[in-house]
Amino acid sequence: MRTAFHEELNFISDQLVEMTRLTASALNRATQALMDADLELAESVITADEYIDAIRRDLDNRAVDTLARQQPVATDLRILVTSMRMSSDLERMGDLARHVAKVTRLRYPQTAIPASLRATFSQMAHVAEQMVIKTGSIIANQDLAGAARLKDDDDQMDQLHREVFRILLAQDWSSGTEAAVDATLLSRYYERFGDHAVSVAHRVVYLVTGEWHDELNLDEALELRTADSARDTAPVRD
Amino acid sequence: MRTAFHEELNFISDQLVEMTRLTASALNRATQALMDADLELAESVITADEYIDAIRRDLDNRAVDTLARQQPVATDLRILVTSMRMSSDLERMGDLARHVAKVTRLRYPQTAIPASLRATFSQMAHVAEQMVIKTGSIIANQDLAGAARLKDDDDQMDQLHREVFRILLAQDWSSGTEAAVDATLLSRYYERFGDHAVSVAHRVVYLVTGEWHDELNLDEALELRTADSARDTAPVRD
Repeated sequence: MRTAFHEELNFISDQLVEMTRLTASALNRATQALMDADLELAESVITADEYIDAIRRDLDNRAVDTLARQQPVATDLRILVTSMRMSSDLERMGDLARHVAKVTRLRYPQTAIPASLRATFSQMAHVAEQMVIKTGSIIANQDLAGAARLKDDDDQMDQLHREVFRILLAQDWSSGTEAAVDATLLSRYYERFGDHAVSVAHRVVYLVTGEWHDELNLDEALELRTADSARDTAPVRD
Repeated sequence: MRTAFHEELNFISDQLVEMTRLTASALNRATQALMDADLELAESVITADEYIDAIRRDLDNRAVDTLARQQPVATDLRILVTSMRMSSDLERMGDLARHVAKVTRLRYPQTAIPASLRATFSQMAHVAEQMVIKTGSIIANQDLAGAARLKDDDDQMDQLHREVFRILLAQDWSSGTEAAVDATLLSRYYERFGDHAVSVAHRVVYLVTGEWHDELNLDEALELRTADSARDTAPVRD
């Protein structure tokens, strides 16, 4: 019975990693569609988001069923509750990739991104995609140090977000209001994508340490974790 | 024991209603600060958001504790899981009110909203505030019909969101790129605020019917509910 239960937990963890792979792919393809004004590719991202939504629903149903049938406590309960929160973040990241694709579709056959912003958006997309790929590995390996390092990527994303506004608001902006509106929304979508990746990483920390760090600095969380380990010499349940 | 448990569920429900009251107030004050370029009021909204975050953390901790101690199944389990999702939406609505206040602070002593957009933003704020007030009543009364009617408010919000873009992209827009960028973000914040209110209302439907309607039309949900009621003549647990 316990074996079946832990197989279920492993399945949920694998599916969360699969969701990171799917959202990374969705954002990658959405960005390519955006840069190339590729309508067909944009449509495929919009359609494929339904599959991400379906995985999320399946995961949530499994988590609720498992809560009801197995009545887990302590770490096992924390894993299930946390997995529902992670799937919610990851599903939202899929939505944001879909939003990028929808801007592409709205402006087709024009491209939504003027030449002056292409390099910055390419970088944003690269950082965002790397963040969710790292998040997949953080989930798979319960990698707290990796979760802490994600802050650097998020800082880089915030810088790029500011860089977009710097370009938009410079005297030499000549691409008009529509392009400025599109770029504002697109920049926000990439930035939020990164925020949700950080949120998932925070949840891995909660899962491992039992400390709730939605609002805390992740460095503090790791210090708490180190303090815990020093106090508690009991073996960690794997 | 059961009585203590149901007191706990009632407390959680009351706190969710309190969160709707607080987010409604936050958005109301953030809008007033935005319209009047009132820095002090904007700062008070930003500070007060910490209280909404704290209620959310307390609610989530209570829900996880109650899951562990009471091992609820069926409806009681559904209420606890759903309450955690509602508190997450409501906390995010508080963040969005804070974002509106931050735009006000960023542009102070200027106002972020040009005259041509004031009426539309006033309407958006009014609709958004009404939506969360209605959501509070929907939670308190498990009001499925009210949840279904919220779609009309959301349609109105979407129309106002489109109206902002119509004004921004019209030939006679003369307020410059910075005001266009601000208005794009602000409009998105109000629209997302409304989306989260709808999401909370959907969760009340799940709570009452046990059917999962994140992606479904709420009308379909109510039809399912009616079909369920016709099949199932057992008294509804209150």
